[in-house]
Amino acid sequence: MSNENAVEILLVEDNPHDVELTLRALKKYNLANKVHVAKDGAEALDYIFASGIYAERNIHDHPKVILLDLKLPKVDGREVLRRIRADERTKRIPVVVLTSSQEERDIVDSYKLGVNSYIVKPVNFDKFLETVEELGLYWLLLNKPPY
Amino acid sequence: MSNENAVEILLVEDNPHDVELTLRALKKYNLANKVHVAKDGAEALDYIFASGIYAERNIHDHPKVILLDLKLPKVDGREVLRRIRADERTKRIPVVVLTSSQEERDIVDSYKLGVNSYIVKPVNFDKFLETVEELGLYWLLLNKPPY
Repeated sequence: MSNENAVEILLVEDNPHDVELTLRALKKYNLANKVHVAKDGAEALDYIFASGIYAERNIHDHPKVILLDLKLPKVDGREVLRRIRADERTKRIPVVVLTSSQEERDIVDSYKLGVNSYIVKPVNFDKFLETVEELGLYWLLLNKPPY
Repeated sequence: MSNENAVEILLVEDNPHDVELTLRALKKYNLANKVHVAKDGAEALDYIFASGIYAERNIHDHPKVILLDLKLPKVDGREVLRRIRADERTKRIPVVVLTSSQEERDIVDSYKLGVNSYIVKPVNFDKFLETVEELGLYWLLLNKPPY
């Protein structure tokens, strides 16, 4: 029996405004109920590795994509990405960095750490919604995940 | 001075019908003139590494994305991907496998070799066009490439 509410997107985002906008965009294709939000890097790691408050999760229930902000409380987005890629059980989960940073160093570092894609959050409200819609469609409906 | 006709997509595809459909889909957003087609794996490697008939190319003029079929004459798609990822000069170019194969082994192998995304070619004509349109938009307009 497939679970229609299974988590397909892990959104790692500490800014409540960006969380709200992202969920609003994903509602358009009924994808919002498939999102789990982690508010900092430590919570994201607990979710991904099924530890701490997520100890009851099955670590092999991978989301189809992780949307990862870079500037995060507790554990930085880079470190989250590094830990995902360093563990055989999680290293191939598609990860998209979704950030306001356009800095060359952030882009290059993310690719060096093995990110699948790097998206800059548009400042414009409508553009933001459109970008997240396309992002959601691409990784949930078009891309064939590894697991 | 920027070159408006610079190659942004390297399409590695031996099936002339799929090449035609792909170019037709990319025309919708005026992206078709930014595509270079390589008809087999050996030509793709020559293009990417600026050798053979492409010796005059600058190897650092990377496409924004490589769309790579798996079953290719001369050199297989997997081997092309392996060679791209093994060379410091090319290892971070975004590569999307675009194939008719839905085989688990092909999907898993591609991710193991470091593909950014894996897309199954839809059999349906309209669906094929739509998929390539979304693919083109995503990797040319949304994604921030590493170079």
